Amino acid sequence: MTVAQVLLALELIGTFAFAVSGALLAAKKGFDIVGSLLLAGLAGLGGGVIRDLIVGQGVPTAFAAPLYLIPVAAAALAVFCHLIREDRLRRTLLVFDAVGLSLFCVMGSTIAYTAGLNPVAATLLGVITAVGGGALRDIVANEVPQIFNPDGVYAAPAFLGAAATTAALYWEVFDGFAAVAIALMVFIIRILALKLRWRVPLAVLGLPRKASGE
Amino acid sequence: MTVAQVLLALELIGTFAFAVSGALLAAKKGFDIVGSLLLAGLAGLGGGVIRDLIVGQGVPTAFAAPLYLIPVAAAALAVFCHLIREDRLRRTLLVFDAVGLSLFCVMGSTIAYTAGLNPVAATLLGVITAVGGGALRDIVANEVPQIFNPDGVYAAPAFLGAAATTAALYWEVFDGFAAVAIALMVFIIRILALKLRWRVPLAVLGLPRKASGE
Amino acid sequence: MTVAQVLLALELIGTFAFAVSGALLAAKKGFDIVGSLLLAGLAGLGGGVIRDLIVGQGVPTAFAAPLYLIPVAAAALAVFCHLIREDRLRRTLLVFDAVGLSLFCVMGSTIAYTAGLNPVAATLLGVITAVGGGALRDIVANEVPQIFNPDGVYAAPAFLGAAATTAALYWEVFDGFAAVAIALMVFIIRILALKLRWRVPLAVLGLPRKASGE
Repeated sequence: MTVAQVLLALELIGTFAFAVSGALLAAKKGFDIVGSLLLAGLAGLGGGVIRDLIVGQGVPTAFAAPLYLIPVAAAALAVFCHLIREDRLRRTLLVFDAVGLSLFCVMGSTIAYTAGLNPVAATLLGVITAVGGGALRDIVANEVPQIFNPDGVYAAPAFLGAAATTAALYWEVFDGFAAVAIALMVFIIRILALKLRWRVPLAVLGLPRKASGE
Repeated sequence: MTVAQVLLALELIGTFAFAVSGALLAAKKGFDIVGSLLLAGLAGLGGGVIRDLIVGQGVPTAFAAPLYLIPVAAAALAVFCHLIREDRLRRTLLVFDAVGLSLFCVMGSTIAYTAGLNPVAATLLGVITAVGGGALRDIVANEVPQIFNPDGVYAAPAFLGAAATTAALYWEVFDGFAAVAIALMVFIIRILALKLRWRVPLAVLGLPRKASGE
Repeated sequence: MTVAQVLLALELIGTFAFAVSGALLAAKKGFDIVGSLLLAGLAGLGGGVIRDLIVGQGVPTAFAAPLYLIPVAAAALAVFCHLIREDRLRRTLLVFDAVGLSLFCVMGSTIAYTAGLNPVAATLLGVITAVGGGALRDIVANEVPQIFNPDGVYAAPAFLGAAATTAALYWEVFDGFAAVAIALMVFIIRILALKLRWRVPLAVLGLPRKASGE
């Protein structure tokens, strides 16, 4: 497999993962199947579309290649047919979200850097690709986005992954193996952060953390 | 009248229709006249601006041609002066919304397909043009978007209209008459769906539908 | 100093001002420092990014020049370290917001007009640059945007500033001095409107204004 093939496979898996999080949120909110498809599409493809609009090289990939709609439809269908169950909703949603997060920060930085953006912008666009779809999903469903939940470490691992990807590209040591390794690192950090209840400092130093039922 | 003239007329009528829905929502939420203009503009022009950003052929039409601001200002003014009454708010809003929906799915697909996008993307962009303005209107006013209301059939007729338009363009049978006919079909389906309380299946098969006061 | 230098300095100050409003909102909502950076970035750079996407001349400035991230990081840090205090949150937030508003309407119109857009679009894009970041900040944090608060005059002074800037550019009398003067006028109007409780008419003529604790 070439790097391009590994990256495409990762992007489709990440799209499916985020799309599942969208379809599960639609189920939780009692939306219908059309709303489920829309929310799955926003979650799965929204981050990449924002990235492509900012990079500005023609029609966003999600629209140029109908292939990307397959994981979205598959995710909505899997939730519709109970293949991905609602009764373990919270945990399932978190794992799928973590898979998407780790794959998309790598993809986003790679695409932005390859398009000629500076390393700082490439890192930022990796983070935007990773958290943008989930943020759009939550904003459109009228929820406070998960990125802002202070009882979790969400954007920080995406930032690490995006920075590592950009560094690897800058020093020309990026390949399919590096992509998978960085994504795995981001996934492990995200899951460890959930299990071990890691916390990022609050927006104001020394302020007490509100009690919250994560 | 040429096809271009019919399409322009339809687009201005659709813009007015959606803009009215924005100004009425502003009235309902107690916003001032500036907020009414902003919400009317977002509802009337937002879907088209998203479409134009994705199609990526220069400055979005809504900004390139000041003509499009006239229906927006007219809508805010009509609501301001009680020409469109607030006391029959819900029904009026639904009818105006249906007019915009049916015109914009046809316009969106036509513009995207003519710009060279593939038929799948052209269909999607028809749906986005049709539901995007209304979604932005509701998101910005901090409401759950009407597209996600499971007690209605909203995005589905827009999808039918967008697919029919793309098919007509693909088989080269699209003209001003076809445009009006498809828009009328979408409008009738949307209104019938409201009257006869049609429902789309929920996001999860077999889940009970929550009671709701449509 | 050249006009370009004055404009760059104003844009960085405006970015800092809006970014502070984002970081303070993050503090108020109990978000962590990463959420504070994201909200500061959205508030400080979001309006300009929307403007640049619509103007459509390459990668938005905020991504092309990493310099713009410095005021964002500085704002989040200043709030984190109590340099900008939370206990006078409301007033501080309003003043910083007014500074950003007055600088960004001037900047937005200048950039749009210089890029070749028509005067109407340049005026609109000035308003969008000025209110867009704040709107994104509030939407993403799941609040009703401050622009829609009928107990204040917010978008109207930005519109005046944008129109004055576009007129000055059209009649070729725009320079660094004019930029500062227009921004100062907008700031004074906004602050006077707050102090003297000026009001814009509501969306519907003659409707009673709801009691509200501004």
